[in-house]
Amino acid sequence: MDQDCIFCKIASGQIPSLKIFENDHILAFIDIGPVSDGHTLVIPKQHYGTLDQMTPEIMAEIAKVLPMLAASIQKAMKSEGYNVLCNNGSAAGQIVEHIHFHIIPRNANDGIFKKWPSFQYPDGKAEQIAAKIRENLSL
Amino acid sequence: MDQDCIFCKIASGQIPSLKIFENDHILAFIDIGPVSDGHTLVIPKQHYGTLDQMTPEIMAEIAKVLPMLAASIQKAMKSEGYNVLCNNGSAAGQIVEHIHFHIIPRNANDGIFKKWPSFQYPDGKAEQIAAKIRENLSL
Repeated sequence: MDQDCIFCKIASGQIPSLKIFENDHILAFIDIGPVSDGHTLVIPKQHYGTLDQMTPEIMAEIAKVLPMLAASIQKAMKSEGYNVLCNNGSAAGQIVEHIHFHIIPRNANDGIFKKWPSFQYPDGKAEQIAAKIRENLSL
Repeated sequence: MDQDCIFCKIASGQIPSLKIFENDHILAFIDIGPVSDGHTLVIPKQHYGTLDQMTPEIMAEIAKVLPMLAASIQKAMKSEGYNVLCNNGSAAGQIVEHIHFHIIPRNANDGIFKKWPSFQYPDGKAEQIAAKIRENLSL
């Protein structure tokens, strides 16, 4: 446990939360600063900063409950769709430095996350990038 | 395999892709319409439309490789952070109806996904929503 981490305190019960689900490893609770009704956060109870710092085993524990949680939230909120989002690092919009997966109910034309600023690589660049990532694979 | 699905064809090799990683269950490849350099897609080889349709077991297979892939992409691209994003349903921005996880390298002030339109629930509403989701949990 990180003594300064608000999500560690939520996981341990020191700070109250509106819990949706928990098991030995995982806690899911209502985001009190939501971007849509039913916006839920899923965290490992143990402290990890970002996805790349997690063990495959604990990430698999989160993953096992994500389909059930997504289906349940969608059913409860009668939403048409949902985003699952994990921001890693402040450059990516992470504010609390305890990894968390957002489940964000969505409906058509709700105006959330409109922008998808895709572009095309110049010739040869995608191949170069693919090679560079393969060289850096930490298998 | 879904005969009309472009990601099934990529998984089977009928359509070429710039592969980063694959095992028996999972394929990771370069998104050719990226939002940042190194933008990678991670898919199950088997066809599933959305997260809520997946089995916990196959979702766990994806999860096991996500930390390694995220670390490798971050290292290769020398990025400061990254988003992991899974859009489910067209209302949530899903275009190809074969579940895929975006890994999107990010740097401070890169101007991607600026908006985070959070709000506060009126008194009592968060509690009502939490209760409704708990009632609909498909345990």
